[in-house]
Amino acid sequence: MADSYRILLGENELPQQWYNVQPDLPRPLPPYLHPATGKPVTPDDMLPIFPMELILQEVSQERWIEIPDEVLDIYRLWRPSPLHRARRLEKLLKTPARIYFKNESVSPAGSHKPNTAVPQAYYNKMAGVTRLATETGAGQWGSALSFACNAFGLGCTVYMVKVSYQQKPYRRSMMQIWGSEVYPSPTDRTDSGRAILAQDPESPGSLGIAISEAVEDAVKHEDTKYALGSVLNHVLVHQSIVGLETKKQLQLAGEKADVLVGCVGGGSNFAGFCFPFVPDKLKGDNIRMVAVEPTSCPTFTKGAYMYDFGDTAGLTPLMLMYTLGHSFVPPGIHAGGLRYHGDAPLLSLLVHEKVIEARAYPQNPVFEAAIAFARTEGIVPAPETAHAIRAGVDEALKCKETGEEKCIVIAFSGHGFLDLAAYDNFIGGNLIDFEYPDSKIQEAIAAIPKFPG
Amino acid sequence: MADSYRILLGENELPQQWYNVQPDLPRPLPPYLHPATGKPVTPDDMLPIFPMELILQEVSQERWIEIPDEVLDIYRLWRPSPLHRARRLEKLLKTPARIYFKNESVSPAGSHKPNTAVPQAYYNKMAGVTRLATETGAGQWGSALSFACNAFGLGCTVYMVKVSYQQKPYRRSMMQIWGSEVYPSPTDRTDSGRAILAQDPESPGSLGIAISEAVEDAVKHEDTKYALGSVLNHVLVHQSIVGLETKKQLQLAGEKADVLVGCVGGGSNFAGFCFPFVPDKLKGDNIRMVAVEPTSCPTFTKGAYMYDFGDTAGLTPLMLMYTLGHSFVPPGIHAGGLRYHGDAPLLSLLVHEKVIEARAYPQNPVFEAAIAFARTEGIVPAPETAHAIRAGVDEALKCKETGEEKCIVIAFSGHGFLDLAAYDNFIGGNLIDFEYPDSKIQEAIAAIPKFPG
Repeated sequence: MADSYRILLGENELPQQWYNVQPDLPRPLPPYLHPATGKPVTPDDMLPIFPMELILQEVSQERWIEIPDEVLDIYRLWRPSPLHRARRLEKLLKTPARIYFKNESVSPAGSHKPNTAVPQAYYNKMAGVTRLATETGAGQWGSALSFACNAFGLGCTVYMVKVSYQQKPYRRSMMQIWGSEVYPSPTDRTDSGRAILAQDPESPGSLGIAISEAVEDAVKHEDTKYALGSVLNHVLVHQSIVGLETKKQLQLAGEKADVLVGCVGGGSNFAGFCFPFVPDKLKGDNIRMVAVEPTSCPTFTKGAYMYDFGDTAGLTPLMLMYTLGHSFVPPGIHAGGLRYHGDAPLLSLLVHEKVIEARAYPQNPVFEAAIAFARTEGIVPAPETAHAIRAGVDEALKCKETGEEKCIVIAFSGHGFLDLAAYDNFIGGNLIDFEYPDSKIQEAIAAIPKFPG
Repeated sequence: MADSYRILLGENELPQQWYNVQPDLPRPLPPYLHPATGKPVTPDDMLPIFPMELILQEVSQERWIEIPDEVLDIYRLWRPSPLHRARRLEKLLKTPARIYFKNESVSPAGSHKPNTAVPQAYYNKMAGVTRLATETGAGQWGSALSFACNAFGLGCTVYMVKVSYQQKPYRRSMMQIWGSEVYPSPTDRTDSGRAILAQDPESPGSLGIAISEAVEDAVKHEDTKYALGSVLNHVLVHQSIVGLETKKQLQLAGEKADVLVGCVGGGSNFAGFCFPFVPDKLKGDNIRMVAVEPTSCPTFTKGAYMYDFGDTAGLTPLMLMYTLGHSFVPPGIHAGGLRYHGDAPLLSLLVHEKVIEARAYPQNPVFEAAIAFARTEGIVPAPETAHAIRAGVDEALKCKETGEEKCIVIAFSGHGFLDLAAYDNFIGGNLIDFEYPDSKIQEAIAAIPKFPG
C-alpha cells in the first residue's frame, strides 16, 4: 500500500458537539457595548435581530454545545471533510516538513461558510422566524446562507453590494438557484438604501450600506431576523467543527500538529480551525497558530486593540478587537473575504494574549503559492485561502533550512472556481501589491471615538 | 447512528485495474477504417498521433488492464470518489426508490475527464513524448489534460475554439494555472488554421477546426502527440474506474442497482460508469442502463448506426457508430459537452444490441431537475450532468406510481460552478427547448459517404 493522501472520517465520526473557547480563555471576554449608552449589551438588546438560542451561544460559558440532529443531517451532505497530506507540494519544496490541509472547499457553497449558515438557519426556524435577511459582498456568505435557508424552508433576502451584483453575477446565480431573493444594494426597499440613493442614484454600494439594509429589514419585519457570517462568538462556535475534525484526523494519521495556519477576514474560518487546539497550547503544548492577513488590510499586524464598531456606519455594538478603524476602506484586492476592518473579538483576545501570532502578505507572493499548490495538489485555492497556503509554504521552507520535520496544517477554506479572473490578473502580471501607508492607518484609528473609556 | 449519506472508500480500496468491455461484447467491435483506403486502420497508422501503449489498449482483448502506480498516485489526490445516497431528493419526490449518485465533481478539474487525462499523459511521458496537443470547446477536456500534463512535467498546447476563448475565459484560466499554452483557434500556427483565417479572418472557430489544428501540431512535431478526451476505446477503459468504484460502494451499502443513468456526449463518462455492469447484464441480471442525450443532438435516439468520420472535416478514421452525420451542427445548447455528432463505437454497439437503452430530453426539464437537485443535495450540477439527473428523477417518479422500491444510480459527471450563466438563463426564462427537425437530421445522415460499403 502506497503512502496515503487523504485522511477520511466516516459519518459516524462526525463530531456531535461544537467547541466553545470562552471557558478556556486566559481572561474573560469583555462585553459588547451599546452604541448609544456605552453600557454592556443585554440579550434583550439583540433579540430584534437574532433568535434567543444564538444569543445564548454568544455569551455561553459551556465548553461543549450539542449540535442538533437536524443540523448534523445537513452537515452530512459533505462532512466530515477530508484532511489531505500535501505530498506533492512537499516534494516540490524539498522540505522535511509534513504538510496537511483541511479541505472545506467540498461544501455545497465551496467554502467553510455553510458550517455556520446551517445552524443559524436552523435556530431561526425553531424560533418561528420565516425569513432571514443578510448582506453579501462577492457572495460567499450570501450563497452559503441561501443554501442553508433553503434546506430548512426559510425565505432568504440577500442585499448584495451593487458593484459585485453587476460584475460578479455567478454567486448571485447560486443564491437564486437555492431560492433566495437577491437585491443590488443600495435598494429602495429600506430607509437606509433610499437615503443613499437620494444622495447618489448611481451609488455602487458598499458592505456597510448592505449591512444597514439587511439589519433594517430584520428589525422592521417581525417574522424576519438577521444573520452574520463571521466575527461573532456563535459563528466561531459553529466553525469549531473544522478544528475538531482536524484533531481526529491528525490522530488517525499518527500526527501532532506543530504549526496551524489559516487566513483571517473576520476570523471565523481560522478560529474554527484552531480554537480546539487552544487548550493544549495553554497547557504547555508548543503548537504555533498563525493568522494570515493581506498587507492591504493589516488588522492584526498594524491595527489597534480597542473598542470599535463592527460596521462602517457605526450602528452596531462596540466590540473590543483589533481594528483599523471602522472608517478604514481597504483597496479592492482579490481576496474580498479578507477586507474587513476588524477581527473577531475572541480571536483578537487570543492574539493580544500572544496565544496566536499574526502575519501579513502582499498579493503577488500569495498567488505564487496558490499556483504552486494548484500544480501539485490539483485544487485551485480561493484567493483568501491562498494567504494561508503562502504561510504554510514559508513555514515548510523554514524547515528546509533548519532540517526540522515539523507537521504543518493549513486551513483550506475554499476553492477558487469563482475567482479565476483574479488568477488571470496574476498570470497577466496585472496584480498590484498594495501596502497601506501607516499614516492612513493611524488616521483611521485616531478617528475611532474613545467613547467607552 | 442516523442514516448514511455518503459511501466512502479508503485509498486502499482504489481499484488497481481498469475494466475493458471488449472481450465481453456480444459480438466483436468492427475495426476503424482508414479514410483514404477504406482498409482497417493498423497500429502503425496511429503512431504519429498516439503512443503505442494507448494504441494497444485501443485494440486490447484483455478484460483487466493494470493501472500503473504513477497513475494511481495522481488518482489518489481525489479518488476513490464518493457515492452519495440522495435521501433529500428522494423525500422531495416522495418516491419509494433509493437514489444514489456517483460524484465525479470532486476531481481537480471538476469532472470525470481527469480519469483518462492522467493515464494519457503518463503513457505519453513513458514513450518519450515531451508535449501534448489537444482541442477544447468550453474547456472541460482542455483543463483536465492541462492538469494531467503538469502532473507529469509534459508541455500542453490547447487549441480552444475562439468564441469560447473569448466568451468563457474561466476554463482558459484554469489551463494556464496548470501551465498550458492556450490559443484561440483558428490560429496562424498551423496550415489548417491559416487556411481558415485566409478565408475568414474573423472566424469564431469550431471544434472541428481545433481538432485539425491539434492533430496537425502533433503530426508535424516529433516530440508531440495528440490526446482525445472521449469516444475512443482506451478512453472508455480509463473511465471504467468510475463504475468499478461504484460497484464496490453499492456492495458496501448492501445494494444491487436496478437502473444506471448517465449523460452521453462522446460517451466516455457513461461508458466508464456502466460497462463494469455489462457482464452481469449479459449473464441475465435485469439491470437497466439508460444513456441520456439532449433532444437538440439526438445521436442515439434519431441517428443512424453506420460508419462515419469522428470529426467535422472528415480527416479521422471512419468508425461504426451512431451518428447524426459529421456535417451535423447542433445548436448552441448549454450542455456543450453533449454536442457531438457521434457516439463512442463501443457504446454504440451495446445500444445497437439493446444491452443499453437511450433517451433524449430538452433543456428546460433538465434544468428543472438540476435545480431540484441543487436544492435538496446541495451540489449545483453541470448542465451535462443535469441530463442524467432528469432521467434519474423520472425513473424515481415512475417508482412512485408503481410502488417499486428500485435502486437508481446516477452518474454525477461534474459540477456547474463554471456554468452558472446557463442557470441564469433558465431562471430568467430565456432557455429555448430546441428540437432538431427530422428532415435536417435525415439530410446530414444522407450526406455521409457510403464509402466503406
